[in-house]
Amino acid sequence: MNNGLFITVEGAEGVGKSTNIAFIRSTLESMGIEVVVTREPGGTEMAEEIREVLLKNRTEMVAESAELLLMFAARAQHIESLIKPALVAGKWVISDRFTDATYAYQGGGRGVAFEKIGILETFVQDDFRPDKTILLDAPVEIGMARAHKRGELDRFENEKSAFFERVRNVYLDRMKKDPQRFELIDASKDLETVQLQLKRVIEGIVEVSS
Amino acid sequence: MNNGLFITVEGAEGVGKSTNIAFIRSTLESMGIEVVVTREPGGTEMAEEIREVLLKNRTEMVAESAELLLMFAARAQHIESLIKPALVAGKWVISDRFTDATYAYQGGGRGVAFEKIGILETFVQDDFRPDKTILLDAPVEIGMARAHKRGELDRFENEKSAFFERVRNVYLDRMKKDPQRFELIDASKDLETVQLQLKRVIEGIVEVSS
Repeated sequence: MNNGLFITVEGAEGVGKSTNIAFIRSTLESMGIEVVVTREPGGTEMAEEIREVLLKNRTEMVAESAELLLMFAARAQHIESLIKPALVAGKWVISDRFTDATYAYQGGGRGVAFEKIGILETFVQDDFRPDKTILLDAPVEIGMARAHKRGELDRFENEKSAFFERVRNVYLDRMKKDPQRFELIDASKDLETVQLQLKRVIEGIVEVSS
Repeated sequence: MNNGLFITVEGAEGVGKSTNIAFIRSTLESMGIEVVVTREPGGTEMAEEIREVLLKNRTEMVAESAELLLMFAARAQHIESLIKPALVAGKWVISDRFTDATYAYQGGGRGVAFEKIGILETFVQDDFRPDKTILLDAPVEIGMARAHKRGELDRFENEKSAFFERVRNVYLDRMKKDPQRFELIDASKDLETVQLQLKRVIEGIVEVSS
């Protein structure tokens, strides 16, 4: 049996990640592929506990290194106890966010040096990377307007639009530097158009992989 | 005002850390020194939450890197939001365990490569180290017999004696490599004798620091 593919879905707030991940899952399943959908930070019981520590609104100032180490602790656990075993079993793993999000949010958003992120990326992942990354991209105003409609915001969502501009730009930069891995989806379009784009991208990935 | 001193207290299970830390505190306070007593992993609200994630008995296999990253996440938070501010305010900080414990337990006990620990030590601490480390040392049988009397054991205490032999040996090795920083206390003796040794060590530290 061949290893499954590891696909990550990235994008800032309000680009429709949840809806579109459900669509990616059903599209793959309709093609007979066994799919595991997961998310970061989180994906296992322990990693979800780390997620809670990370996302909690608190008065205590959170040290930059502490936040980064927690992100990668959750990721290490996620990779070893969920992602790799599923891939080895021939399943495809779709993760709602992965390391690109750390570069975008902690790096771009909060100004953590990319080199610091790179040290922990190597520490945890060695050369393990997503096979494909689907980037759902939309102008910040559109994303934020959608996110606000959903109600209460957590510590990361509760940021200013300049923050999300930086997040978006890092995602786009990373895509330019690694065009083989990334698939860009224009998430500012209506849902039907977005899912037409997605369907085409998924069919391409499946074709190449088989 | 001069910076306070950062003193760590190390040792395996059952060497009497809690009792002796209380004694160190009262000895210093009787000399007019303002003392903050703290512990690792933990010491701040967020770091204590990370401690809970670390020490919880769980069926999920814990990835080696995840455990190490959590330890250092708690440490980063502890240093930035408690230890350094207290030292700058002229207080002395006594920590029940610090990075030597990571080398001893994760390195010696679990066999995590010291180089991996060193990467995260540099990442989090740069050149920040304890001014003094008091090592409470006792043969493993004595320590374990005392620890068992205290009742239920957490995930780290629930280990075999070969594990604690390795822990003890790493502590002793680290002491040999850094004799200036370490003060060895023979914790196998009765409490009165141990505290006589401790009193002499503390008076020496205070004399040199003033």
